[in-house]
Amino acid sequence: MQVGKPILYSYFRSSCSWRVRIALALKNIDYETVAVNLTKDGGQQFSEEFQALNPMKQVPALKIDGITISQSLAIIEYLEETRPTPRLLPQDPKKRAQVRMVSDLIASGIQPLQNLSVLKQVGQENQLTWAQQAITSGFNALEQTLQSTAGRFCVGDEVSMADLCLAPQVANADRLSPAGQGTPPHPVLGHSSHCGPQETARSSWHNTVAMPTTARGIPRSPCSQEGVPRLVDTPEGDPLRACSPPCGVSVPSSELCFPPISPSGRPR
Amino acid sequence: MQVGKPILYSYFRSSCSWRVRIALALKNIDYETVAVNLTKDGGQQFSEEFQALNPMKQVPALKIDGITISQSLAIIEYLEETRPTPRLLPQDPKKRAQVRMVSDLIASGIQPLQNLSVLKQVGQENQLTWAQQAITSGFNALEQTLQSTAGRFCVGDEVSMADLCLAPQVANADRLSPAGQGTPPHPVLGHSSHCGPQETARSSWHNTVAMPTTARGIPRSPCSQEGVPRLVDTPEGDPLRACSPPCGVSVPSSELCFPPISPSGRPR
Repeated sequence: MQVGKPILYSYFRSSCSWRVRIALALKNIDYETVAVNLTKDGGQQFSEEFQALNPMKQVPALKIDGITISQSLAIIEYLEETRPTPRLLPQDPKKRAQVRMVSDLIASGIQPLQNLSVLKQVGQENQLTWAQQAITSGFNALEQTLQSTAGRFCVGDEVSMADLCLAPQVANADRLSPAGQGTPPHPVLGHSSHCGPQETARSSWHNTVAMPTTARGIPRSPCSQEGVPRLVDTPEGDPLRACSPPCGVSVPSSELCFPPISPSGRPR
Repeated sequence: MQVGKPILYSYFRSSCSWRVRIALALKNIDYETVAVNLTKDGGQQFSEEFQALNPMKQVPALKIDGITISQSLAIIEYLEETRPTPRLLPQDPKKRAQVRMVSDLIASGIQPLQNLSVLKQVGQENQLTWAQQAITSGFNALEQTLQSTAGRFCVGDEVSMADLCLAPQVANADRLSPAGQGTPPHPVLGHSSHCGPQETARSSWHNTVAMPTTARGIPRSPCSQEGVPRLVDTPEGDPLRACSPPCGVSVPSSELCFPPISPSGRPR
């Protein structure tokens, strides 16, 4: 039996790792991080050592309670079953189904089509178009779905696994947008913060973004100040160390800031 | 509140629908099928009527207990929580994590990369190569994963949601193989029926294939005789009505035979 803290194999930009980081943070689970840089050294996920942990050569993987679990939603469901407070799945089976439906829509219907390995396969010149198509199509469907499930968050008024999937996916959407060109408007999905009376239909991801700093999987630091930092690629090709404007905060090389929310309600 | 039988929106060749059909059959849930032909009329999933049910324009979707659920794993989890017998998730949280890990590996890591819409996007000349790469890479990882989780089935000795994902994915692998060229050998994943003493490491999908006829989502009929029928495309482009050699069995137009297992242990 393994002892000690859980170990999360993670990459800051991996939206799937990010889902798990939010879950660990919300559940206040102390853990250690091992950074697996998906772009350095030809991709550290291809090392023999990491493949032994996750033969899919993907992050995240979580060593916990003597087992190693890969696949972010399997990890989150395990955390939910063994560390149920605060809950990330509602009690009502129908609401649970809606949470899983939204989560799977993102985890199976959007993310796999725009992840690093697929974009490499598509080729650099087609990457943005390909990614945009997957994300826009998925977000259009998600918008329609959320219209019947969302309250303050994706499903009702409590944060759930669905929100843990949506927030990183919205960040991906922003990152993969052509410069200056946002994704199409999705009123429920990405409703801005000035929605006033439409409070109950507010953006699910917006509210996730607005969760306490610790819930975002970010070390407590001024780096997480709303509207201040954002990740930038450094000249060395290592995007892990810089915020712009510089926040002066030292964070683990595998983890960095959540994209802060802009006045328009979209991450910037 | 909706009354009456659950209604499954399904397509015979959809591996995601197939997962749910197996679950419904194993749990002995009486339901009605509405066929959504993904290739007829330009794709019936694009109809306004169906998009209102599932804005992702994908099957399956299940109307049940007054709600409509899309995403096959969300559906299966809902069935498990509301119709728990026989169970499709083990009781032990660690085993449950393994079942979900294997299921998600297929549902997020393989299937989305080789489904109909993506293959259309890739273009006809690249389809097989693209699909083969996704499946082979996924199966290689799955083989390694199953080495530590499998008993008679994907996880231990009981059929689980993981097997419901694997069997249809193996059928996809067979269907998307270049003629006469099998996928690489995967001893645990696809171990042939003559494994003898290696009983406990036998192919998970093989055992799923060997489940009772009703468990395969197939109407009780001679059409499901092992080794006899297989789907063929008819001259009308409707592959739903013919078996070769003809089995003479009338089955719902949306559902048809599970590919029978060959002596080598692979579906043929």
